[in-house]
Amino acid sequence: MKIDNLVNGVGEWLKGDGPESGIVISSRIRLARNLHNFPFLTIADDKQREAIEEFVRTQLESAKLKPVMHYLPLKGMTALDRQVLVERHLISKDLAQSDGTRGLFVDETESLSIMVNEEDHLRIQSLKSGLQLHQGWEEINALDDQLEKALPYAFSAQFGYLTACPTNVGTGMRISVMMHLPALTMIKQVDKVFHAIARIKFMVRGLYGEGSQAAGEFYQVSNQISLGKSEKDIINEIYNIIPEIIKYEQTWRKKLMVDAHKKLEDRIFRALGALRYAQSISSDEAMEMLSAIRMGITMDIIKDIPLQTVNEIFISTQPAHLQKMEKKTLNMAERDIARAAFIRKKLAGTAS
Amino acid sequence: MKIDNLVNGVGEWLKGDGPESGIVISSRIRLARNLHNFPFLTIADDKQREAIEEFVRTQLESAKLKPVMHYLPLKGMTALDRQVLVERHLISKDLAQSDGTRGLFVDETESLSIMVNEEDHLRIQSLKSGLQLHQGWEEINALDDQLEKALPYAFSAQFGYLTACPTNVGTGMRISVMMHLPALTMIKQVDKVFHAIARIKFMVRGLYGEGSQAAGEFYQVSNQISLGKSEKDIINEIYNIIPEIIKYEQTWRKKLMVDAHKKLEDRIFRALGALRYAQSISSDEAMEMLSAIRMGITMDIIKDIPLQTVNEIFISTQPAHLQKMEKKTLNMAERDIARAAFIRKKLAGTAS
Repeated sequence: MKIDNLVNGVGEWLKGDGPESGIVISSRIRLARNLHNFPFLTIADDKQREAIEEFVRTQLESAKLKPVMHYLPLKGMTALDRQVLVERHLISKDLAQSDGTRGLFVDETESLSIMVNEEDHLRIQSLKSGLQLHQGWEEINALDDQLEKALPYAFSAQFGYLTACPTNVGTGMRISVMMHLPALTMIKQVDKVFHAIARIKFMVRGLYGEGSQAAGEFYQVSNQISLGKSEKDIINEIYNIIPEIIKYEQTWRKKLMVDAHKKLEDRIFRALGALRYAQSISSDEAMEMLSAIRMGITMDIIKDIPLQTVNEIFISTQPAHLQKMEKKTLNMAERDIARAAFIRKKLAGTAS
Repeated sequence: MKIDNLVNGVGEWLKGDGPESGIVISSRIRLARNLHNFPFLTIADDKQREAIEEFVRTQLESAKLKPVMHYLPLKGMTALDRQVLVERHLISKDLAQSDGTRGLFVDETESLSIMVNEEDHLRIQSLKSGLQLHQGWEEINALDDQLEKALPYAFSAQFGYLTACPTNVGTGMRISVMMHLPALTMIKQVDKVFHAIARIKFMVRGLYGEGSQAAGEFYQVSNQISLGKSEKDIINEIYNIIPEIIKYEQTWRKKLMVDAHKKLEDRIFRALGALRYAQSISSDEAMEMLSAIRMGITMDIIKDIPLQTVNEIFISTQPAHLQKMEKKTLNMAERDIARAAFIRKKLAGTAS
């Protein structure tokens, strides 16, 4: 698997064909795992990190995992290639920016991946289109079972899986559901929803995880607690919350269709006009316009543009992807021009 | 001639095929004329105004003017129909809004017209596409000669044609050249040009004559003095100025094409995108966007949209025209929606 090939498509989770994909972009499950025969990374030195990576890599390469997982070592990888992986949600910013021996296992469809030597020895991820936590859980659980046979996990009968940071102890699981909530954002009801979520120990973050801003009306809803509950409990809890948010967003969309139909249509079509005609567009503006047309597509105001096209533009117009596609370093102004050109090309021939 | 038919097209002066029509929208010549056998309108009472109108109307109807001039009495005409005539530059706001007997003669092509009982007994107008003052002068002069045979003009051997306002005495002529100067506006050089013009006794006004604001990068250059010079002198003087302004605008357009090519293209295409996709658009925004795409067409950045289409949109998206086309009274929000729909229709099928 080559980074250069990755940039020509999107992972399966961006196909936009999962359940509730009008409002739920993706369902992500992450499991934190550590090996009991190596020190935690908080205290490991460079040599130990190297040993961990080698052990994990050789064990998993000989384990014949299903699905087949390709290994990409991050040491020696260009900053641009690492950024591509961040933009595809395959690795964290931390893994991209840290030093030392570390790497990524990822399957062909980008649905399953394993970061090696991030905060924990292993961070396993499942990423699915729409609201598909049960399916995602089955897949990541099957992978976790295979790993557990190949690797001696640090596990305590009392606490569960042991992790570098105590907030992850227990199941080691974090679920993140990425939602698109333009109507609730427009009518400024999003904070209200999120305060309610916080009270039941779930939290909301931006597109790229911890510390990132919610951007372009996209939000990630995650569990805060991983201890004292089973994985299924956590999944069931989030399944109680997400449909409520979806319903709330849908109710407001319908209300906007009645109360501000023309204004909404105007906003959505103007966004489409801007994307189809701009010769230069910033990443923020593109995000805002894409958010508007995404709403338009799922509300059947814009026809003939597949959701996948919008998702593809989201991923592909990020800085590292643009530079990989153009095969050269671009400054911000050049990226704005390349971004506009890519969007025009993608949206050409899709009449509406 | 019916107002309802007028709104379905534009006058010949808006065909955009005159000389220099990339920068010069239109050339207008106006002659102020009065009858010596009636009091000036400044002191005429209602009965006298009525008598003037009747005299002029019957004299001109029997004079078999060439081209054929249709008469439209303004008394009893709806405010909406009068506004249509203002929007087409056939009558002044004053004539539309004043009371009493008054009217308009206009030929089929809207190139020649005569307001009856405006500030002067007669205000004759020639309106041509692009920079065509000589042609316009020949046409208005020929019409003026015919009128002079039918009507006893107030003329003094010392002062020339006598007029209600002393600023018009002499030739009674005012020339207005409507120019589109987006580059000079963008780089804020327009004031400099206009100060230079003012020094040589020409002035700059907005689209609808005296007291109106210059809007959407459109400006009218007019002579201030009508006395002590022949008509040809005044025309020659303006012919010395206009090409200078055109050259200055063109120089800056070329400079922008080099220095800010992408920015310019972006502005122009985004304007086209907004016009093709907006579901609601204010008159000010439409003017601004049309100004941008007009520049794009004349700079060959936008192809396949004829200048006439842009000119037609300018005229037809004004409030009275929109309401005539929709055959009903529209409030501002409704006009914005009707305007956007009209523009989308006009610009559909014009690929670029």
